[in-house]
Amino acid sequence: MAKRVDDLGINNLKVVQETDYFCFGMDSVLLANFVNSSNSKNVILDFCSGSGVIPIIISAKKKYSKIFAVELQDKMYELLEENINLNSLENDIIAIKEDVKSTTCIRKKILDYTKNNMVDIIVCNPPYKNIGTGSINENEVKYIARHEVMCNLEDIFSSASKLLKSKGRLYLVHKPQRLVDLLTLARKYKLEAKTIQFVYPMIDKDPSIVLIEYVKGGGNEVKVLKPLIEYNSDGSYTDDIYSIYGMNKIIK
Amino acid sequence: MAKRVDDLGINNLKVVQETDYFCFGMDSVLLANFVNSSNSKNVILDFCSGSGVIPIIISAKKKYSKIFAVELQDKMYELLEENINLNSLENDIIAIKEDVKSTTCIRKKILDYTKNNMVDIIVCNPPYKNIGTGSINENEVKYIARHEVMCNLEDIFSSASKLLKSKGRLYLVHKPQRLVDLLTLARKYKLEAKTIQFVYPMIDKDPSIVLIEYVKGGGNEVKVLKPLIEYNSDGSYTDDIYSIYGMNKIIK
Repeated sequence: MAKRVDDLGINNLKVVQETDYFCFGMDSVLLANFVNSSNSKNVILDFCSGSGVIPIIISAKKKYSKIFAVELQDKMYELLEENINLNSLENDIIAIKEDVKSTTCIRKKILDYTKNNMVDIIVCNPPYKNIGTGSINENEVKYIARHEVMCNLEDIFSSASKLLKSKGRLYLVHKPQRLVDLLTLARKYKLEAKTIQFVYPMIDKDPSIVLIEYVKGGGNEVKVLKPLIEYNSDGSYTDDIYSIYGMNKIIK
Repeated sequence: MAKRVDDLGINNLKVVQETDYFCFGMDSVLLANFVNSSNSKNVILDFCSGSGVIPIIISAKKKYSKIFAVELQDKMYELLEENINLNSLENDIIAIKEDVKSTTCIRKKILDYTKNNMVDIIVCNPPYKNIGTGSINENEVKYIARHEVMCNLEDIFSSASKLLKSKGRLYLVHKPQRLVDLLTLARKYKLEAKTIQFVYPMIDKDPSIVLIEYVKGGGNEVKVLKPLIEYNSDGSYTDDIYSIYGMNKIIK
């Protein structure tokens, strides 16, 4: 087991990770930046928080009153708490050791810190893979972080819909292959996709990930944004990626 | 009223249009090229055929045994027949003056020419706009071609699902704003999106249209293709667009 510290390149923020567990990638960084939160009263909830990279980036770049980070796995939860302390964000980010599906317990915990009983924004970088796929050699912590063992897409939409206030927003990153499920299952829970952006590794490649903003109780039209392209043809990062990362640091 | 003749740039094919009616655009050309039909036994059906540009391009560029072109409006149907005759395609393209919703009548007509009672491929460039939107000065023929007056998205999926054989394919072009409806309503009728391509006017613009391939009874994963970009930053067409148009002719 080895620990690794990544500098996020914003306000000296750092994230400690265990290299044997699931380490965050560009998808988490892009998702955190995709979140639209410009109101300092916003209560934000991060599902499947892992080591906490998404709430930590949001704490530096977005407006909010409180961020709650939900993580169920013991080992990941320990890292999450370690990272909150490392960055002195104890007043900003509250870790909740809970199952995403336990919305009653999550709401109780939120009510200890806020007057709202519904949250404004939910963010989630969920496990992408179906159960049964992937290497059997993966350790359990990593397997659960990557696979739909503890929660699947429908669980996330169901819980998000219960916890979000009317017109509240859910931000999700996922694989484009699941696009039909991502839009169809969400609509079943009154979460209507409002903004979609596909992220393409290069201009002539299929997209590797998709970012989606949903509005609870939104109308049936969606805005698909311009392509977000990661690399130029010479292998360098595009200006869009540099502007998201703030020119300071690129996490590979 | 003025007639206009467009040279399609393939095998000397031409399309006569009435400038007072709905004239075809790049969306129809891209859709016809997006169709995957490499089997000379395929029976192809084009819904909302208008002046017939899609079946005419398909007749030149794809394999098939027979193409049926369904158009309900008198004036457009006359143009459709005129264009079939103009290009001597009477043996290849059969015009059907019928409502897309009248699947029993459409099937009867198809059975006059084929032994199949189910079709392999359906293509459709439907009206994009909701009723009530658009200029009140539009003439009726144009209004019906552009608006969901005679058939809406759900009608198209319902009829396509009835007429397609199992694993048959539907190809649709539409506005990206309707993406959630395009995927959710289709799934309701067992039409599963399998391939999606967004068409962007330029690399830094939101997409203007989306091309979708559905498979009747397909699985739940979809492939999103690389972005199809129309113009380079200097205003010239991209190589992808030139290769679709075959270097001969660009229709604006």
